[in-house]
Amino acid sequence: MYDRMQELSGRDMEKIHNAAMDLLKNTGVSFNDQEALEIFKKNGHKVDGNTVFFKEPDIVKALKTAPRHFTVHARDPEKNVKIGEDDFVFLPGYGAPFVMDVKGGQRQATMEDYDNFCKLIQTSSYINMNGWMMVEPSDMPHDTVHLDLNLSNMLLCDKPFMGSPVSRQGTLDGIEMAGILWGGKDNIMDKTVSVSLINSLSPLQFSDEMASALIELARHNQACVVASLIMAGGSGPVTLDGVLVLQNAEILAGITLAQLVRPGVPVVYGSTSSAMDMKTGALSIGAPELSKNIHLTAQMARFYNLPSRSGGSLTDALCADAQAGVESALALSTAARSGINFILHAGGILGSYIAMSFEKFLIDEEACGMVLNMFKPLALTDESIDIDMIKEVGIGGQYLTHPKTFRLCRTEFFMPSLMSRKNPDAWTRDGKKRIDQAAQDKVAQRLAAYEKPDIDPEIEKQLTQYVEKRKNA
Amino acid sequence: MYDRMQELSGRDMEKIHNAAMDLLKNTGVSFNDQEALEIFKKNGHKVDGNTVFFKEPDIVKALKTAPRHFTVHARDPEKNVKIGEDDFVFLPGYGAPFVMDVKGGQRQATMEDYDNFCKLIQTSSYINMNGWMMVEPSDMPHDTVHLDLNLSNMLLCDKPFMGSPVSRQGTLDGIEMAGILWGGKDNIMDKTVSVSLINSLSPLQFSDEMASALIELARHNQACVVASLIMAGGSGPVTLDGVLVLQNAEILAGITLAQLVRPGVPVVYGSTSSAMDMKTGALSIGAPELSKNIHLTAQMARFYNLPSRSGGSLTDALCADAQAGVESALALSTAARSGINFILHAGGILGSYIAMSFEKFLIDEEACGMVLNMFKPLALTDESIDIDMIKEVGIGGQYLTHPKTFRLCRTEFFMPSLMSRKNPDAWTRDGKKRIDQAAQDKVAQRLAAYEKPDIDPEIEKQLTQYVEKRKNA
Repeated sequence: MYDRMQELSGRDMEKIHNAAMDLLKNTGVSFNDQEALEIFKKNGHKVDGNTVFFKEPDIVKALKTAPRHFTVHARDPEKNVKIGEDDFVFLPGYGAPFVMDVKGGQRQATMEDYDNFCKLIQTSSYINMNGWMMVEPSDMPHDTVHLDLNLSNMLLCDKPFMGSPVSRQGTLDGIEMAGILWGGKDNIMDKTVSVSLINSLSPLQFSDEMASALIELARHNQACVVASLIMAGGSGPVTLDGVLVLQNAEILAGITLAQLVRPGVPVVYGSTSSAMDMKTGALSIGAPELSKNIHLTAQMARFYNLPSRSGGSLTDALCADAQAGVESALALSTAARSGINFILHAGGILGSYIAMSFEKFLIDEEACGMVLNMFKPLALTDESIDIDMIKEVGIGGQYLTHPKTFRLCRTEFFMPSLMSRKNPDAWTRDGKKRIDQAAQDKVAQRLAAYEKPDIDPEIEKQLTQYVEKRKNA
Repeated sequence: MYDRMQELSGRDMEKIHNAAMDLLKNTGVSFNDQEALEIFKKNGHKVDGNTVFFKEPDIVKALKTAPRHFTVHARDPEKNVKIGEDDFVFLPGYGAPFVMDVKGGQRQATMEDYDNFCKLIQTSSYINMNGWMMVEPSDMPHDTVHLDLNLSNMLLCDKPFMGSPVSRQGTLDGIEMAGILWGGKDNIMDKTVSVSLINSLSPLQFSDEMASALIELARHNQACVVASLIMAGGSGPVTLDGVLVLQNAEILAGITLAQLVRPGVPVVYGSTSSAMDMKTGALSIGAPELSKNIHLTAQMARFYNLPSRSGGSLTDALCADAQAGVESALALSTAARSGINFILHAGGILGSYIAMSFEKFLIDEEACGMVLNMFKPLALTDESIDIDMIKEVGIGGQYLTHPKTFRLCRTEFFMPSLMSRKNPDAWTRDGKKRIDQAAQDKVAQRLAAYEKPDIDPEIEKQLTQYVEKRKNA
């Protein structure tokens, strides 16, 4: 397939691989967690203080047991998702402390906001997996908020969800609660029901929270995205090829730990590395370097036969304006076209992760639908081409009134629910609304129409009791 | 290269080709121009009334003489552009009757607007070729406006430009004026200095204006985009594969005429076919079907070894909002990634071609820059990876203060001139401007800073006199 974006040759990928092997062997990666260090030691790794060194066969062995494709089970099995190879999922934004409104008003996010995002995800046609910490609720105690997020994920939405990676205990809470949801922990030990995000601390470190969460998740067969988010020129090299090498070393180190804990546990090769803005010194996620890195990361993941993760609808804009549209669409479509399997941040993010916007969530969601439609292949059969019909209509004829047009016109094309195709008169009559203003009305409608999915009342009670018990512990 | 968009197999393309051959042979194409019919008759085509029939060898012969790559010469040779294979150009919007302002105010376009677009193109870092009829000036007499547009294109901008295809005489005027600009008509008979847009009238027709313009352009070795703009379900089949067949027949018929007139004249395989919106019955150019068609059209053009043309930053939105951003970025990046060579409408279009927006022009222009940056390949040399530097910084080290970061940080990354990377405080201090509002200020700055490119005063005088003489004829 012709593509003006860079195709890495086998030789290029070997070069990145070999440089990462050099780093892993000679510089090593720091794991700030005792159990992680013990696991590495037990498996013959050289460990010096917190620094773990890797030999190429260690990496090769880990890559052999990591699956190239896996299913995340939802409590409604119709909503199970597959991740890997040609299969991919769209997820909401992650980790935003603020909510931005249509007028540019910024406020701290609350638990109610979190719940509302769960409701929008439940009713979404295109966001097919629930996230984690779409917003950070400011009105909940920090130490126990993960329990509330888990509970909302499990009760308000029956799609598969992301798990809690906040700490060892936070992770175990998530697994206990998933056990309750699935009628017993034994039921999920061979069944992946969550995917959690494990970020390295660049350069070349894993924090204690992340390392211990990774171990517990792997132990319980819950999938982990091992991701590196390097700011080129800040927490990593100023050139993107250096970034590819550094992130590769970090990701492979994390994946190796997961496979040592439990060979075969699903892992995802993740990155949203991007450039530093040279004027502000801050990370830019609207930068074209982000899309370039996404495209290259997808290729490196395929090189290792691993599912891949990147960001999606990312932007530096602080309101859902044309900049937000352009930047988000470029990154989202790059991720999806280039073969990313786990597209996080596919909806809602504004301002380099600082805020979520309900309106932008709906706009991005529709962009996901458009991208999916772009991928729908033409049938290219004699029937779909229908040369006889084209001949029958002939020169200067009319297709609008042809029976085939009537028959197919409601199913053949993408039908937007938000994007406007009004003519200027109709648009003026409707108050010349921008799409973000129109989305505001739709958010209210969607939330009003939301219905909580059915759940066994006994399970709901047990989940709620677990949360209460842990909060009072 | 892995790509989630559809790759046509050789067999698929043969199928589309064969169906088009069937149409060309048995249904034919109507050319509403006497000279066109005579040319076809003289070359052995069956002609019945205005309908011309084509045998496959006629098409094959035409394709043999059509170049796969050509140069459009600019009066500043530094600004020559290459079109075909890996080389591509971005052009402004085309044919909009209105101008839309930031507040959604719509007014008829004027000659001053046209001139201002010429000035923005002249000062653009990314739009590398001037267009034609970016807006239709309402304040100029219809019969002679093409002379004014030519004059502005030639005097206000020294980039290569699109030519006038409005009629036989309109085309000849453009060629005469180009002759003056190049110091004599003889100087351009072997040199392509313009590209003109020849649209078919779907299904299966060429109007007298378009057919006669095509003949004169080809005769004078000026490049023609032969393009089909089918509204699937309106002026063509309701399925996109039917559209591919119909547009293929139309484009190949036009290209054959051009090659009969002058074998070897540069031609471009063009389409911006898209879907009809089923609610309004109007063409939707924000639809994902547009991008899908662009991607498939690029493949069909490569099948024939021809340069390709599509639309770029197209949208149905009536203001430069997030919808405009999403739709424009999807079509623009699809065109550029998928290998289109002549990307028309890369800047400014709103509302399904009804209006141009100066602000959106600047936003789209920056999107072009971002897309170009996405294509810039990594060096992937030992020097650019610089493993020693990564080892030196080591675990938990700092790249920000490394000399290499200082050395490269101003050249390594894309520097936006419009897209905001402000933090919320800075953005709030600056009045929480949306990108379209920020663009408004930039438009004024760009126009104020514009300088008319130097030109031989004698040539300028002759051009002006030609226009005056023709207006008074």
